[in-house]
Amino acid sequence: MYESYWQQMGEKTTVVIPGWQSMSYFSDVKNPCWFLEPEFAKQVVRLHNLVGNAVTEGRQIVVGTGSSQLFLAALYALAPKDASEPISVISAAPFYSSYPSMTDYLKSGLYKWAGDARSFDKEGPYIELVTSPNNPDGFVRHSMVNRTGGILVHDLAYYWPQYTPISSAADHDLTLFTVSKATGHAGTRIGWALVKDPEVAKKMIKFIELSTIGVSRDSQLRAARILEVIINSSQNPGGPESGESFFKISYHFMAERWQLLREAVNKGRFFSLPDFQQGFCQFLNQVSQPQPAFAWLKCEDEGVEDCESLLRGHKILTRGGRSFGVGPKYVRVSMLDRDHNFNLFLKRLASIQT
Amino acid sequence: MYESYWQQMGEKTTVVIPGWQSMSYFSDVKNPCWFLEPEFAKQVVRLHNLVGNAVTEGRQIVVGTGSSQLFLAALYALAPKDASEPISVISAAPFYSSYPSMTDYLKSGLYKWAGDARSFDKEGPYIELVTSPNNPDGFVRHSMVNRTGGILVHDLAYYWPQYTPISSAADHDLTLFTVSKATGHAGTRIGWALVKDPEVAKKMIKFIELSTIGVSRDSQLRAARILEVIINSSQNPGGPESGESFFKISYHFMAERWQLLREAVNKGRFFSLPDFQQGFCQFLNQVSQPQPAFAWLKCEDEGVEDCESLLRGHKILTRGGRSFGVGPKYVRVSMLDRDHNFNLFLKRLASIQT
Repeated sequence: MYESYWQQMGEKTTVVIPGWQSMSYFSDVKNPCWFLEPEFAKQVVRLHNLVGNAVTEGRQIVVGTGSSQLFLAALYALAPKDASEPISVISAAPFYSSYPSMTDYLKSGLYKWAGDARSFDKEGPYIELVTSPNNPDGFVRHSMVNRTGGILVHDLAYYWPQYTPISSAADHDLTLFTVSKATGHAGTRIGWALVKDPEVAKKMIKFIELSTIGVSRDSQLRAARILEVIINSSQNPGGPESGESFFKISYHFMAERWQLLREAVNKGRFFSLPDFQQGFCQFLNQVSQPQPAFAWLKCEDEGVEDCESLLRGHKILTRGGRSFGVGPKYVRVSMLDRDHNFNLFLKRLASIQT
Repeated sequence: MYESYWQQMGEKTTVVIPGWQSMSYFSDVKNPCWFLEPEFAKQVVRLHNLVGNAVTEGRQIVVGTGSSQLFLAALYALAPKDASEPISVISAAPFYSSYPSMTDYLKSGLYKWAGDARSFDKEGPYIELVTSPNNPDGFVRHSMVNRTGGILVHDLAYYWPQYTPISSAADHDLTLFTVSKATGHAGTRIGWALVKDPEVAKKMIKFIELSTIGVSRDSQLRAARILEVIINSSQNPGGPESGESFFKISYHFMAERWQLLREAVNKGRFFSLPDFQQGFCQFLNQVSQPQPAFAWLKCEDEGVEDCESLLRGHKILTRGGRSFGVGPKYVRVSMLDRDHNFNLFLKRLASIQT
């Protein structure tokens, strides 16, 4: 979806890396996160200050190979090293479908997936993943458990103006962001964490040293350029050097898609979509609508048990509710596909209801 | 050390990536390794065919965020999923100092570090890491254990003409390489594995999906360009378009450094270096000398117990033998530092012996 914006922006988004540049493992020997490119860190701070979606002051920025690596780094950093059993990792269903497998694939003795936060009743410490707006259903979320010994990791990948009203600057202990959801550049594999406790940050950095000895410097340099272009486009929208405001254009793109989807769904009684409350967006300086990157579609028809299979029969590829810890009446559909594919999806969806 | 070569090569090594390129997670949906850039894969095959250091036919190429990630992916892929205890991971001492911590930092139930392959006598399956030429001591290596149930991972990061004679094309089940040691571009974090068994490759790909959802596409594109320049420089050395042969220049660089180091060491009896056997290099088409990327220095003086401390007292930073599974009489010194630092090292080393 974002591709056409970046095509319009033309040459100013291009990054040029000569063969002799960034050869060393090290980006910044003076930073505890020695593999963090200073220019990338600078643009991250500028972007958060501009959008107002997260406090960066008093935080260590840790860069990762996507926010996936930072999620694993956070588990490693937060899990007690000398516990008799692995710490429980939980999230309220429906949760991001990769959390369980990412947590358990190495059968770590440090942490273990313990399922839906709503039904979690084990004594002792735990790590709760709070994804807000939530993947897959798009709702704003807070901690569900709120017990002593609980440690929170906030995954704010979708906390950007095109997806949800920016109500205030997030001020948590450990927050994850990713370039892929902010700007559409998934292939760069660049994410970042804002970490309050320097000791936790140090352990996350250690994790990234041990798993990949740092993070691609080329991609960090490219991400820095991309973020800079976005910042300029917001500060001086429509200017000859800066182009159209990225967040405003993206907001209108998403609004249009959500309107088309709701129209298609409301033509019959077969499907339903979540209802969201609008809110005031500090960044856009107006009331704005939640319009998530995924549609969380429910099959209301009583005769249909498995919505994913039904849709697959109509050539609509989705991920079924079971992957997200809920029933098969639900499916997740991407709202960020290319125009052609999105229109095909709408057409096929409409055909089911006629 | 390689920096000056790349500076001389100038613009032809530069990579240019427009903002709208490589945005998707996917590089090649038709390849089992869906995050592998076709252009990078192509240059890897060309380079191995040219240098003659590894068979690529009948192998799945798996790209990783450095060979570190591929090492972990290999452990994950080779460890039995339903065993009652973790599989033993071993390597003959002196071994790469990060192997133990990389294997054990997540306390995986799948695999566990079991130390020096020479003294390994546990029954049952195991994974043996064969690093050749070896880090830290530079010797050519083969499996030490050779028992039923043994699975081998060959780390051939240093199997390039500048470091060791290329005697034949490696033809193992699972072989790791990395751009950082081949060309000096450590900051790109790009490595690759050549994997014979498609099922093992599939599991390695799964590991990379779960840990980082693929590998930086920007760095793969840059690595492809770098490898292409190296190939051209070897096929048409001195040509106006191709420049001086990378491997020949690097071979002479290393030869010069090793000669200077041996001269410095041989001025006294305080230190010693490994003695290597020369061999015929199929690529250079001449007898060539092993000249490892690290010097494995031994303190011969009986009064010195801890060589690392002694050298630190003379402002020479090394890593002591204990990190590599042997005694503190040994240290590892990088031979790839910038000219200025290398000359300083020689000067300080000489001052100890006078």
